[in-house]
Amino acid sequence: MRYELFYWPSIQGRGEFVRLALEEAGAEYVDVARASGRGKGMPAMTQIMEQQKLQTRPFAPPFLRAGKLLIGQTANILHYLGPRLGLAPKSDAGQLWAHQLQLTVTDFVVEVHDTHHPIAGSLYYEDQKSEARRRSKHFVAERVPKYLDYFEGALQANSKGKGYMIGRSSTYVDLSMFQLVAGLRYAFPATMKRREPFVPGLVALHERVARRPNVAAYLASPRRIAFNQHGIFRHYPELDA
Amino acid sequence: MRYELFYWPSIQGRGEFVRLALEEAGAEYVDVARASGRGKGMPAMTQIMEQQKLQTRPFAPPFLRAGKLLIGQTANILHYLGPRLGLAPKSDAGQLWAHQLQLTVTDFVVEVHDTHHPIAGSLYYEDQKSEARRRSKHFVAERVPKYLDYFEGALQANSKGKGYMIGRSSTYVDLSMFQLVAGLRYAFPATMKRREPFVPGLVALHERVARRPNVAAYLASPRRIAFNQHGIFRHYPELDA
Repeated sequence: MRYELFYWPSIQGRGEFVRLALEEAGAEYVDVARASGRGKGMPAMTQIMEQQKLQTRPFAPPFLRAGKLLIGQTANILHYLGPRLGLAPKSDAGQLWAHQLQLTVTDFVVEVHDTHHPIAGSLYYEDQKSEARRRSKHFVAERVPKYLDYFEGALQANSKGKGYMIGRSSTYVDLSMFQLVAGLRYAFPATMKRREPFVPGLVALHERVARRPNVAAYLASPRRIAFNQHGIFRHYPELDA
Repeated sequence: MRYELFYWPSIQGRGEFVRLALEEAGAEYVDVARASGRGKGMPAMTQIMEQQKLQTRPFAPPFLRAGKLLIGQTANILHYLGPRLGLAPKSDAGQLWAHQLQLTVTDFVVEVHDTHHPIAGSLYYEDQKSEARRRSKHFVAERVPKYLDYFEGALQANSKGKGYMIGRSSTYVDLSMFQLVAGLRYAFPATMKRREPFVPGLVALHERVARRPNVAAYLASPRRIAFNQHGIFRHYPELDA
């Protein structure tokens, strides 16, 4: 199957969780908005989003075309792709648990985004800076520990596989943990320096994922967009108190 | 199957989307934190949330016990329950689409919550009132139309069934649309008065769901907790400009 991923071309954002899964699995895919030529580029993405009569029109990117299917919502895409890419547990119960963890990642990602946009996505950061500072104070003190400790706990509670989030082998949830640690290190380096000693399992998982051959090749390639000040994870030193 | 639902006992909140599905299907279930007796009430819920070694420990309520499974995340619970309660499409593609819509409901619900808590869940509304007012201004002007128009569009694009969100029969997504309209009417009556003429399909769907026998019986029963100022949907007139 040749997949088509539709996501903003200049940021990692939510699309990165899908890119990582496709890359780790060595899947054949086109990152449509970043490609050029007929039926590619941003117009191809916009055209889908504006088709009012489309039966499964997505609310926002990322979305994935897989044959006749058009699938929206990051966690939903991973739930679909996971078993097909060999990146999900085999049992239904295992897939539900993987999805539950990924939906908790989704919740966390909203909160990360809202540290710099607590008032409105339609305003610039500069127009909501004082609110961002106030929200981030609570985020780094309360929410980062709560989420990271929860994920560390899930990792430690996995009795079957040392060092994997679920079962005895790598899943898309491990890739998402890698991305969370990487993103938080970029956006909140001071906070992470304080918190990492409390989540040694996640830190080790991040390193192991980064060294997996396909992931390492991807990270070294131009396909991996660098973190920047337009994505979900942004580094504003004033928010990382 | 006798289901056990775990959710905060005094609010509709996120748990309400699950309660509506269980009620519409006439499923046998216990709303554990609201029940009394051995193994019930709030202590039963807290005890699960604090079990660090539990294999699929949820991050937050609601969660559902179904036999040996313990399932967290509202949309994940509905994704599991849907086919079992006869409230989801039969095809895999249909179930993916239902889940995609429900995940968009999840996104919207976060934004509804953050209108009154834009800074931190750990602070009182009164301590973030000016930020709440600013966020709500954008919410009612930009986000409510965007989400409602999207859901109305999905309803209209459903070529198979007049008046259902998906296919030819009722699904949990129809119940969720009912709950969104009901909640928004409670929290943002002035805004809804302006917006409802633009989404006649959703308004009609809300009425039809409310009249379904099992839903009507539920809404008239003490099992339906009234909207109040502790849930997700709260009515602060100053936020409904």
